[in-house]
Amino acid sequence: MAATIRDVAQRAGVSFKTVSRVLNDEPSVRPETRERVRAAIRELAYTPHHTARQMRTRRSKTIGFVSDEIATSPFAVDIVKGAQLAAWEHGMMLLVVNTERDPEVERAAIASLLERRVEGIVYAAMFHRVVEPLPRLREVPTVLVDCHDAAGAYPAVVPDEEQGGYLATRTLIDRGHRRIGFVNLDPVASAAAAAGRLAGYRRALRDTGLPFDERLVLHVTTAPDQGFRLTSALLDLEDRPTALFCGNDRTAAGAYCAIYQRGLRIPDDVAVVGFDDQEEIAAHLMPPLTSVALPHLAMGRWGVERLVQSFETSSRPAATYAVQRLSCPLVERASH
Amino acid sequence: MAATIRDVAQRAGVSFKTVSRVLNDEPSVRPETRERVRAAIRELAYTPHHTARQMRTRRSKTIGFVSDEIATSPFAVDIVKGAQLAAWEHGMMLLVVNTERDPEVERAAIASLLERRVEGIVYAAMFHRVVEPLPRLREVPTVLVDCHDAAGAYPAVVPDEEQGGYLATRTLIDRGHRRIGFVNLDPVASAAAAAGRLAGYRRALRDTGLPFDERLVLHVTTAPDQGFRLTSALLDLEDRPTALFCGNDRTAAGAYCAIYQRGLRIPDDVAVVGFDDQEEIAAHLMPPLTSVALPHLAMGRWGVERLVQSFETSSRPAATYAVQRLSCPLVERASH
Repeated sequence: MAATIRDVAQRAGVSFKTVSRVLNDEPSVRPETRERVRAAIRELAYTPHHTARQMRTRRSKTIGFVSDEIATSPFAVDIVKGAQLAAWEHGMMLLVVNTERDPEVERAAIASLLERRVEGIVYAAMFHRVVEPLPRLREVPTVLVDCHDAAGAYPAVVPDEEQGGYLATRTLIDRGHRRIGFVNLDPVASAAAAAGRLAGYRRALRDTGLPFDERLVLHVTTAPDQGFRLTSALLDLEDRPTALFCGNDRTAAGAYCAIYQRGLRIPDDVAVVGFDDQEEIAAHLMPPLTSVALPHLAMGRWGVERLVQSFETSSRPAATYAVQRLSCPLVERASH
Repeated sequence: MAATIRDVAQRAGVSFKTVSRVLNDEPSVRPETRERVRAAIRELAYTPHHTARQMRTRRSKTIGFVSDEIATSPFAVDIVKGAQLAAWEHGMMLLVVNTERDPEVERAAIASLLERRVEGIVYAAMFHRVVEPLPRLREVPTVLVDCHDAAGAYPAVVPDEEQGGYLATRTLIDRGHRRIGFVNLDPVASAAAAAGRLAGYRRALRDTGLPFDERLVLHVTTAPDQGFRLTSALLDLEDRPTALFCGNDRTAAGAYCAIYQRGLRIPDDVAVVGFDDQEEIAAHLMPPLTSVALPHLAMGRWGVERLVQSFETSSRPAATYAVQRLSCPLVERASH
């Protein structure tokens, strides 16, 4: 006969509740106790019986994760990772679907998740933007990650772009730079991030009494050679900048090529700070790139935690929610 | 009353079977017909009733996707993407779980998927390696992606590393290079890829009558500065290579820095070919990096297609399977 949770408790010499806490990966169990329970689980080959538990508690223990393309984009996968870690900690699974930004696929995906009785939905965008959530998302608790709706009808979390832009610029100013070039993101495709970071750049100059020179701020288009091209333009200015704030690390990779092709050194002649902290790029350039990180992991985690919170309270949802902004930390390497 | 599939068929003026084909995204429907059916679906707000269908057909229409960390790694997310595209085409959903290479999480994840009655499981690794699948994977059809088991007990697909290494090297030889440096992967951490690509490198030299010079082949460790450091070592050789084959694009980013810091030009003084085709890096370097692509999308797709095939045949599974190798295509940019 299959072992029950009570057999596990008896063998480990703990209470039923403690085993349950270990199964749900709750942090409140002491490591030795956790190890003892896990040993008992292994020895008895115990498997928690999902279906029975689900029938008893009427909970599917499943959260839907709908994304435009996050889960299949190298850029923002940490959002999925954060959400999955938090889900596991609460004994829940994520049902992940990507819509590839096709409205029909999105409609079908949400219908499909609701039919599978997900307890809530994390709706995530690949980059910070305003979205119009489909009405059916009202049927279960839903949170928005890396995006928000104009009406504030859903709890939502986004990066604090303005703080990130400020931090990047201020880091360079604090190293003594007075002319800082800014290769900003595409103001149309990445409106929220581009505007927020520019506001941060301007505030850092203002706070330190430096003038704003519009010739030092360029915006990329979607072409791939923009980092190289716009950096070249900035370095060709008569009074060229001694430091460069790049709107993302991809752009910084191109900037490195432009700087080196002119025989200049990093950071001695031109200091560089990137944005996004894409490890795959930042850690492999030489010198390794200092970059402001997007809080992808924290946002994914926030989404699931916020959902679980709403499962546990029976209070009515609020009429509107303020957008939560998570700060973007500096990852210091050697380019600044 | 809710619209039925027959209502949709009537409104669109097509057969029941055609609507079903559109719902399953089968390619056999003409675009105009597909559009008419979709319009009818929208107008009638029709939703396919998953639960009813499932009860009738006893199929969950769900495939489990277990990965060590693919779905949360920027590197191999295209495997998930390929699997999801194929799953949608067959009207199925993916239940994605990451184990973060923790055996206990893996055991729990597989148990959890089986309880949710997945029809099959795609078991995927983040990089090409040999795995020991857990016995419970025997309970449903399972395929291995970007990995294989030593016994050949499961259908499995991996990249053809040897062909990829040959292609990279041959591309440089065909441009007239005779001394080609090779910054290969870590022979321990990435054993299958490193050995396969080296075999390809050697075969390309042999086929063209060039000598193998072991001083030109270096292997990275897991440190991030390896591309820069090993390329510097190769460029410091008295008879330095005129071309460089980098085991991945991250390494190539470091190689660019080493080449430029010596005042050399790419590709005029040193040609470079990368591996992996990581768009985020390759497209943003200047000149954009020519790279051999891993067939991530195709492997993910292969996994799901192979599963669906096994659902549809009632023949007994084979005792052993030959590992399927998919070729790695060259993505030509401007660095070679």
